[in-house]
Amino acid sequence: MTSTLKVLVNGAEKSEIAVSDRGLNYGDGLFETVAVFFGIPELLLEHLQRLQLGCEKLKIPFNNWNGLQSEIEQLATSATLSKRAVIKVMITRGSGGRGYQISEDSEIQRIVTLSKWPERPETPAKLRFCDTPLGCNPALAGIKHLNRLEQVLARSEWEDEFDEGLMSNISGDIIEGTMTNIFVVKDGQLITADLSQCGVAGIMRQHVLNLAKEEGIEIKISTLSREQVLEADELFISNSLMGVRPVVALESKAFSIGSITTRLLKRVQAERS
Amino acid sequence: MTSTLKVLVNGAEKSEIAVSDRGLNYGDGLFETVAVFFGIPELLLEHLQRLQLGCEKLKIPFNNWNGLQSEIEQLATSATLSKRAVIKVMITRGSGGRGYQISEDSEIQRIVTLSKWPERPETPAKLRFCDTPLGCNPALAGIKHLNRLEQVLARSEWEDEFDEGLMSNISGDIIEGTMTNIFVVKDGQLITADLSQCGVAGIMRQHVLNLAKEEGIEIKISTLSREQVLEADELFISNSLMGVRPVVALESKAFSIGSITTRLLKRVQAERS
Repeated sequence: MTSTLKVLVNGAEKSEIAVSDRGLNYGDGLFETVAVFFGIPELLLEHLQRLQLGCEKLKIPFNNWNGLQSEIEQLATSATLSKRAVIKVMITRGSGGRGYQISEDSEIQRIVTLSKWPERPETPAKLRFCDTPLGCNPALAGIKHLNRLEQVLARSEWEDEFDEGLMSNISGDIIEGTMTNIFVVKDGQLITADLSQCGVAGIMRQHVLNLAKEEGIEIKISTLSREQVLEADELFISNSLMGVRPVVALESKAFSIGSITTRLLKRVQAERS
Repeated sequence: MTSTLKVLVNGAEKSEIAVSDRGLNYGDGLFETVAVFFGIPELLLEHLQRLQLGCEKLKIPFNNWNGLQSEIEQLATSATLSKRAVIKVMITRGSGGRGYQISEDSEIQRIVTLSKWPERPETPAKLRFCDTPLGCNPALAGIKHLNRLEQVLARSEWEDEFDEGLMSNISGDIIEGTMTNIFVVKDGQLITADLSQCGVAGIMRQHVLNLAKEEGIEIKISTLSREQVLEADELFISNSLMGVRPVVALESKAFSIGSITTRLLKRVQAERS
């Protein structure tokens, strides 16, 4: 990708990985996308904590957390000349094992990539519903693993006429966007989807929930039906790069940007300047 | 992996791939595992047809089928000195696109790896039931894509005390093994699981169904409950490497190797000698 500025594989400047790596063969690994402002990686400890949880769930015995953190900080510092940049971190189980079986000998790979901030519109978002469902698997729910074909297929359902698509589980409950989490405001309450069965527990989602708590906003984590989302007083999406992004349309329904969305958006923006 | 003999990436001898490849980042690609006997890839056209179906489902516009086939045959020929070998083929969407969005500019990667035949026991198999469920997604069902974390987690549930584990969908229906398809024989009928919602439609599974038809054996594709599997008269598993492998135990239940299993096993073995 042309926006890539620098890549470290296990700490060395390099941009390739073995064809036998289980990250490629099975998606056997994890990733994080970290926003960098003025050379500082945002919410880095939270990203590293989610990676650690992912490693536990996938039984990847990675332990070089200090090395990884210093590589991230090293690349982030080299990005201070631009106001914003992106760091993507990948951990894979490496090569080895017979078929799907895990081998204790496989050398875990850590990949840190510094890229330019993506040129995406930052206007309020127009959303659609996606047809591609999210499969349910509690063992994989919440973590940001490398099995992302459902998101790739969902994102291929439209071109650029929408900013994001909402994905449902096979029961029809709304879980998340292809690359964001979804928040509904109804009667002063902030609601976001329960992610215990599927979906990615976004770092910015948790941060928004923390900020809402500080602001004294009532929070609810629950299943979300299409109707609940369509009948929201306010809607917004979040991820580590966009922070909080208000939604002004979902399919043919228009939404206005309400006061709770604005309060949370301003909190996130204030932290970034 | 130490058993790798030769790797071709886009036709050139090479064993690495770009860190930005979507195959690594999202599991955005497909694979095939082809058995090679005396330098001849077994059921090659069937493998290529499933790859083609996979490319259509994932919207990967790969079209160099002749190039790929000749690379496979080239590596297979170099394996004639050993009676058996394995060729793994991977196709990935390559690098490019913003996030999950597909770009028409990405250069599809084709990877062909020749390896030694795996040293696995070839005795009748002992099976268990796995706890890790298979997520349902009709858009991904049947094809052999690179999102295989469910299989990795299922395989990590045991060491070597079993030969294979059976995986269920979240409703509890038995779908397949981690690396095999499952066949039940009951009252002279050959039954295998319906794979329209999840699972991999094995090349050897289809071949076994074709052979059974030739043998005049009644065939049924349907949902399979745990009870149905446990109450089978005969049980066997199949994949492209093992061919047909009789099952002699599932959890604490013993099975004897019956006449239908034996007939099909002999047909597959005869083709391989």
